[in-house]
Amino acid sequence: MQRTLVKHALNSDREIEAIRIQGWVRTRRDSKAFSFLEVNDGSCLKNIQAVIDAGIPGYETIQSAATGAAVIIDGRLVASQGKGQAWEIVATSLEVVGEAPDTYPLQKKGHSLEYLREIAHLRPRSNLFGCVFRVRNRLAKAIHDFFQERDFVYIHSPIITTSDCEGAGELFRVSTLDPAKPPMQDGKVDYTKDFFERPAFLTVSGQLEAEVFACALSNVYTFGPTFRAENSNTSRHASEFWMIEPEMAFCDINGDMDLAEEFVKHLINDILENCGEDLELFNKFVDKELIERLKFVLDRPFQRITYTEAVELLLKSDKKFEFPVEQGANLQSEHERYLTEEHFKCPITVYNYPKEIKPFYMRSNDDGKTVAAMDVLVPGIGEIIGGSQREERLDALKANLERHNLSEEDYGWYLDLRRYGTVPHAGFGLGFERMLMFVTGVGNIRDVIPFARTPGNAEF
Amino acid sequence: MQRTLVKHALNSDREIEAIRIQGWVRTRRDSKAFSFLEVNDGSCLKNIQAVIDAGIPGYETIQSAATGAAVIIDGRLVASQGKGQAWEIVATSLEVVGEAPDTYPLQKKGHSLEYLREIAHLRPRSNLFGCVFRVRNRLAKAIHDFFQERDFVYIHSPIITTSDCEGAGELFRVSTLDPAKPPMQDGKVDYTKDFFERPAFLTVSGQLEAEVFACALSNVYTFGPTFRAENSNTSRHASEFWMIEPEMAFCDINGDMDLAEEFVKHLINDILENCGEDLELFNKFVDKELIERLKFVLDRPFQRITYTEAVELLLKSDKKFEFPVEQGANLQSEHERYLTEEHFKCPITVYNYPKEIKPFYMRSNDDGKTVAAMDVLVPGIGEIIGGSQREERLDALKANLERHNLSEEDYGWYLDLRRYGTVPHAGFGLGFERMLMFVTGVGNIRDVIPFARTPGNAEF
Repeated sequence: MQRTLVKHALNSDREIEAIRIQGWVRTRRDSKAFSFLEVNDGSCLKNIQAVIDAGIPGYETIQSAATGAAVIIDGRLVASQGKGQAWEIVATSLEVVGEAPDTYPLQKKGHSLEYLREIAHLRPRSNLFGCVFRVRNRLAKAIHDFFQERDFVYIHSPIITTSDCEGAGELFRVSTLDPAKPPMQDGKVDYTKDFFERPAFLTVSGQLEAEVFACALSNVYTFGPTFRAENSNTSRHASEFWMIEPEMAFCDINGDMDLAEEFVKHLINDILENCGEDLELFNKFVDKELIERLKFVLDRPFQRITYTEAVELLLKSDKKFEFPVEQGANLQSEHERYLTEEHFKCPITVYNYPKEIKPFYMRSNDDGKTVAAMDVLVPGIGEIIGGSQREERLDALKANLERHNLSEEDYGWYLDLRRYGTVPHAGFGLGFERMLMFVTGVGNIRDVIPFARTPGNAEF
Repeated sequence: MQRTLVKHALNSDREIEAIRIQGWVRTRRDSKAFSFLEVNDGSCLKNIQAVIDAGIPGYETIQSAATGAAVIIDGRLVASQGKGQAWEIVATSLEVVGEAPDTYPLQKKGHSLEYLREIAHLRPRSNLFGCVFRVRNRLAKAIHDFFQERDFVYIHSPIITTSDCEGAGELFRVSTLDPAKPPMQDGKVDYTKDFFERPAFLTVSGQLEAEVFACALSNVYTFGPTFRAENSNTSRHASEFWMIEPEMAFCDINGDMDLAEEFVKHLINDILENCGEDLELFNKFVDKELIERLKFVLDRPFQRITYTEAVELLLKSDKKFEFPVEQGANLQSEHERYLTEEHFKCPITVYNYPKEIKPFYMRSNDDGKTVAAMDVLVPGIGEIIGGSQREERLDALKANLERHNLSEEDYGWYLDLRRYGTVPHAGFGLGFERMLMFVTGVGNIRDVIPFARTPGNAEF
C-alpha cells in the first residue's frame, strides 16, 4: 500500500477504507482492550491518532511502540470521536519498524533550547523544531516564487572567491596547502602552490557577481550561503548563513526601496497564509505578539526617512543610548531598534547615508556627501535588509576605489561593467535567517539553522 | 513610464500606445531618414527591433548607440512589417544611457568558448550564455517545484563541516589560522586555536545531514554547493558545483530508483516546455541531436539492470575498452557510456553494486556481497545520479564503520539515527551542472557555471 502523509490524512474530505501511515510515536496510552498511538511523520505539527485494538496483527509488539519508535500502521481513516481532531485511524495492523529505548533523549517533556542544540541531530523531531524547519522550507519557496513571478533570473554566485565584496571583513581562507608545512618564498607563503594558485576565501556576498548578470539579463537574484569569520558570539550572528541578493538593471534607489518593501510583505503574507498551524505554536510558546506583529507590518507602508532625519530624531529623543548618536556615525543596533520599535512602531527604510561609512560601490548623491544606500529596519530584529544603488559612472567608481585604497587592477572586470553599456542599477541583501527569526519569533539564530556554525562550533 | 521586458513586448497580444524598452544594442543599421536598433535585455534570446526616426528626440546621439551600448527607448509597439518578428517599436524618443566604445570585446562576431571564459563577466551578454543562464534558472526552479509539489522539505545542509561523507575524498580546508605561522603543538598544527577549534573543511555532500532530517520530517532534499579539491582538469569536473540530494524515510532502493527516474523526466519535460527558444539555439549551434535526445529519454522507461548483469554485458561486447572490465571492479566512464549509448541506447539504472567499492553507509543486501546502491546513466553524459538505500540497522552500520576504519565516536550522531526509531531510508544525489549539460548539450562544465572554479582558476 502507498503511504499517506499525516498532513493529507488529517485534511481528508472523506473516510478512507484502506490507508497506511508511517511515522514516529509521540505518545501511547494503553487500556485493556486497545491502545492509542499518537503518530507524527513531520509533514505537519499535528499527530494522527491511531486506535490499536488488542486483536490486530502486531498488537503483541505494542510495548515496543514507545515514544520515538518508528511504526507502520495500516487501517481505516474514520471520523474521530475524540476532541481536537477530525480524523483518526482504526488500525488493522501495526508494525514497529524501529524501537526507541527509554534512553531516547526526546522523551515527552520540555527541553531547554540549549540542550536541544547539543542534540541538533534529534531536535527536528521535536514540535518546535519541526515547525522551524517547515517554515524555513516555506520561506525559501516564497523567496523563489517572488522572484520567479517577476522574471528575475536565479544566479549561483561563487562560494570560493578571490575578491572581497566589502573591501574588508573577516574571511575564512580556503586552501589545500599542508598547514603544518606551507611552501614558503622569501618568508611568505607561496600561494602559487595552492589549489587556485592564489589566496582564496569563502564569499561574504555575491553582489558584485550579481551585478555582472544584472548588466546582461536585467533582473537577477542570488540565494546562497555566505560566510563571516567574526569572533562574535551573539544570538544574531552565525559564521555561515544564507543570503538573498536581488540586483536590477535600469533601477535606482527608489525602485530598490520599493522592491525591498514588496518583498518583505510578500514573505510575511506567504507565511501567514501557508504556515498557520506552525505560527500558532510560535505564538503560543515563543512570542505571544508574533502573529499580531506580522499582520501589523503587512498592513502598513514602511516609513521612509533619510539618515540625517533619523539621527535628528535620535538626538531629540530622551532615550539613553550606550553608543553616542552623532551625524556622520554609524547607526548602532540600539539606535535602529529605537527608531523602528519605539519611535515609529513600524518598519522603516533609512536612506542616503554618509559616504564615509559605506563601501566603495555605492552611488554618490549629488550633495557630494551621501550615497544612495538604504536599510530596512523592522521591530524585534533591527536591520533586516541593506542595499544601495551602485555607482555606475566609471570615473566616480575609480575615485571611490582610490579613496578606499583598492586597486583598479583587482576590480578590472567590475570596472568593465561601467566601460561597456553601463546602466543605473541597484540591489539589496536580505539575511535569510534574520527573516526567519522575524517570521517565527525565534530569538537565537542557532535555532533556525539545521546545524549552526559559530566560533568553536562546527559539529555534525 | 514603467519598463516592459522585451520578452513580454514580443509576446504582446495587442498594439501598445506607449511602451518603454530598456536594454543593450545588439546591432544598428542606418539609412538616411531613420535607423534600426536591435535591442536585447536578457529576458529572452530574441531582440526587439526599434525604428528610430531621424526626427525624434535623441536621434542626434544615434552614432553612440553602438553594439553593447545601453539604451532607453520609448515608443509605440506595432505589428512589424519585417520578417522574423511579430512586433516592433516605433520610437518616440531615444536615450543612450551607457556607451560602448569599439574596444567592447563582444562585437558581433563568433568568439571561441575559451575566449569567452576569459571574459566571464561579459559573456552572459552573448546569445549562447544568455540561453545557458536562463535555462540554469529554469532548471533550478523545476527542481524546487518537483520536490515542493511532493511535500519534500528543503534543507540547507552545512557548507563548513568537520565530517567527511564519503569517508575519503579530497577536501578544501577552511581556516582562519595565520598560514605563515600556524600555532604548533608537539610538531603538529594546534587546531584548537582555529576558528572552529578543530579541523574544518568544505562539504562534499549533505547526505548525512539530510538523513537526520528525513528521520524527522520524512521527505527532504538539499540543493546547495559542494566541493572537490581534486586536481583533475576535465570538461566534466569543477571544484565547486551544486548538488541536489533528496532523502526519504520509509523508502527502499526501489522507491529510490522510481523517484530518480520521475525526477529526471520531470526536469527534461519542464525544460522542453518552458525553454523552447533557448533549446533551439543549443540544437542549432551546440548539439544537433539535443532536442531529439531529450524527447527520446522522456518517452522511454529507464532500463534497470544489476551491476552483475552490466559487467556481463560489457564482457560479452566486442568493444575495446581502455580500462579492464571485471566483476567486482568499478565501472569506468567509458563502460557506463557504452552501456547507455551503444548497448541500450537509452538511460539505464544500474543497481546492487559490490560492497567493496561503495561507501560505508550503503545498505547490505541479503547476499552478503552487494549493497543497495544505484546509478542512473544517460547518453552523452554517463553517470548523472548516484544513490542508495542507507544501512538502517545499527549493528550492520557499526560493522561497516569498522570495516572502513572509521570511528564510532566520530559518527555517534549518525548512529543515533539507528538507535532511536530507525527506519529504512534512501536517497540520491544529482549534480546540478551535469544535468544542465545534459539538457543544453553544452560539453564543458565551465560553460554552464557563472564563474567556474577549477584548479588554478578562481577569478571574478
